[in-house]
Amino acid sequence: MTRSHTYLVNGSFSQGISPLDRGFTYGDGVFRTIVMRNSVPDSWPQHYQKLVADCAVIGIVCPSAELLMNDLQQMFAIDEIAVAKVVITRGEGARGYAPPAVTTPMRVVIKSPMPQYAVNNFIHGVNLHVCEMRLSYQPKLAGIKHLNRLENVMARMEWQEDTIFDGLLLDQQGNVIECTMSNIFARFDQTLITPDLGRCGVMGVTRQRIIGLAAMLKMNIEVSEISMDRLLRADEVIVCNSLYGAFQVAKIADTTWPQHALAKIIRSALNT
Amino acid sequence: MTRSHTYLVNGSFSQGISPLDRGFTYGDGVFRTIVMRNSVPDSWPQHYQKLVADCAVIGIVCPSAELLMNDLQQMFAIDEIAVAKVVITRGEGARGYAPPAVTTPMRVVIKSPMPQYAVNNFIHGVNLHVCEMRLSYQPKLAGIKHLNRLENVMARMEWQEDTIFDGLLLDQQGNVIECTMSNIFARFDQTLITPDLGRCGVMGVTRQRIIGLAAMLKMNIEVSEISMDRLLRADEVIVCNSLYGAFQVAKIADTTWPQHALAKIIRSALNT
Repeated sequence: MTRSHTYLVNGSFSQGISPLDRGFTYGDGVFRTIVMRNSVPDSWPQHYQKLVADCAVIGIVCPSAELLMNDLQQMFAIDEIAVAKVVITRGEGARGYAPPAVTTPMRVVIKSPMPQYAVNNFIHGVNLHVCEMRLSYQPKLAGIKHLNRLENVMARMEWQEDTIFDGLLLDQQGNVIECTMSNIFARFDQTLITPDLGRCGVMGVTRQRIIGLAAMLKMNIEVSEISMDRLLRADEVIVCNSLYGAFQVAKIADTTWPQHALAKIIRSALNT
Repeated sequence: MTRSHTYLVNGSFSQGISPLDRGFTYGDGVFRTIVMRNSVPDSWPQHYQKLVADCAVIGIVCPSAELLMNDLQQMFAIDEIAVAKVVITRGEGARGYAPPAVTTPMRVVIKSPMPQYAVNNFIHGVNLHVCEMRLSYQPKLAGIKHLNRLENVMARMEWQEDTIFDGLLLDQQGNVIECTMSNIFARFDQTLITPDLGRCGVMGVTRQRIIGLAAMLKMNIEVSEISMDRLLRADEVIVCNSLYGAFQVAKIADTTWPQHALAKIIRSALNT
């Protein structure tokens, strides 16, 4: 399974990661997942900007765009579509939480195959499991895509069925936040609501891009708290991430939605 | 700084960690920090038991005690005192949060020098910084020493002064939980109170051992919620971990405490 993955550590194909790397010891780093088409990363300006911003939150100076682009172009060929995971860590440190006075951030690029999504996801939409795992509140880390992802791992372990596409994550008070690998939008008439991620959750690049599409979609956008009850009363629910773009949600628990056109329109808009 | 550290990955001195290891990608693993004396780990039964229990919480089957002891004895010599950090991860996986159906846990042992504590810590006690970073509530992961430690890293980055020994961590409601690398006890007359760690914090082996010493110390033990105000009114405050044993707290913010004998008694008791 992992043989289909290759990686580049600080520009080298032969290197492993040191157990002293703080990404390993503490999850002290951030990452991005990006589609590579013909050796070009989708939405690179947005992904790189987010990488820099997330690094800044935890006090890491992100390697230059040139260095990362160079890594990506070493790994990904013209005429292929594949997935790049770009990881930036604080680099090596001695035992103990205090970072060394001077650190050299480490960069890792992992190449993996583009997932093959079921045709049905594009036509009828996807089903969500409602996770028992609730996201914790941590305003100082909310929104950033850091390497402390045990909540997502534990949530993802809650189901095995192929018929479930993703797991819906609520916060400790029962508000809807996101899915394990996706952000979420709920449409009420001409308004698209997406959860406020000020206390937990990851602010994905595709979520941001969809917010930016609002005018084109002739939709109002609202970023706010949204309870589970309210979500289930939505006219339409959409999940999104950088790999598949957007899918309509067909079913959450006992609630089902008929087919609508919005996810398809958003997918088209994201691809242009 | 990191040259004084050596490591063993799955029993090999020459191996690095794969970027596909889930300990690296998600912090999907647990660890322990143990003093090694003459090639023998301090409190090994307690540390191993805790390692197995923490692994079980996140669904990892911990490698056998024999395998880990073999690693430790390969790395640590008779006639030295040093620190072993033992890390167990879920092992390699493909991209995505779902663990593979079959995983082979990875074990890493990192050897580092025994810290040299200031003599003053043993005599007058230590000073604590009150961290601005608040611990998040996550009952499903509370108590375990997993690799998602960004909160501790961010908290530890709040101070640089050598006069500060550790940082006091409160939860989102302002209750005292622990320090970045220590557990904490507050003495009120003949009662030792230590914070309840059901929603956040790490249940250290030394905290557990001190709870077990209560009868010998002629103290009542109470595990409960403890506010910052209440902590500051304690007759005495003690911090503890597996490396230094126990130190009295001399100062937190503007509150100071005179020298008492309890930390010294606990240190003696822990060493026997």
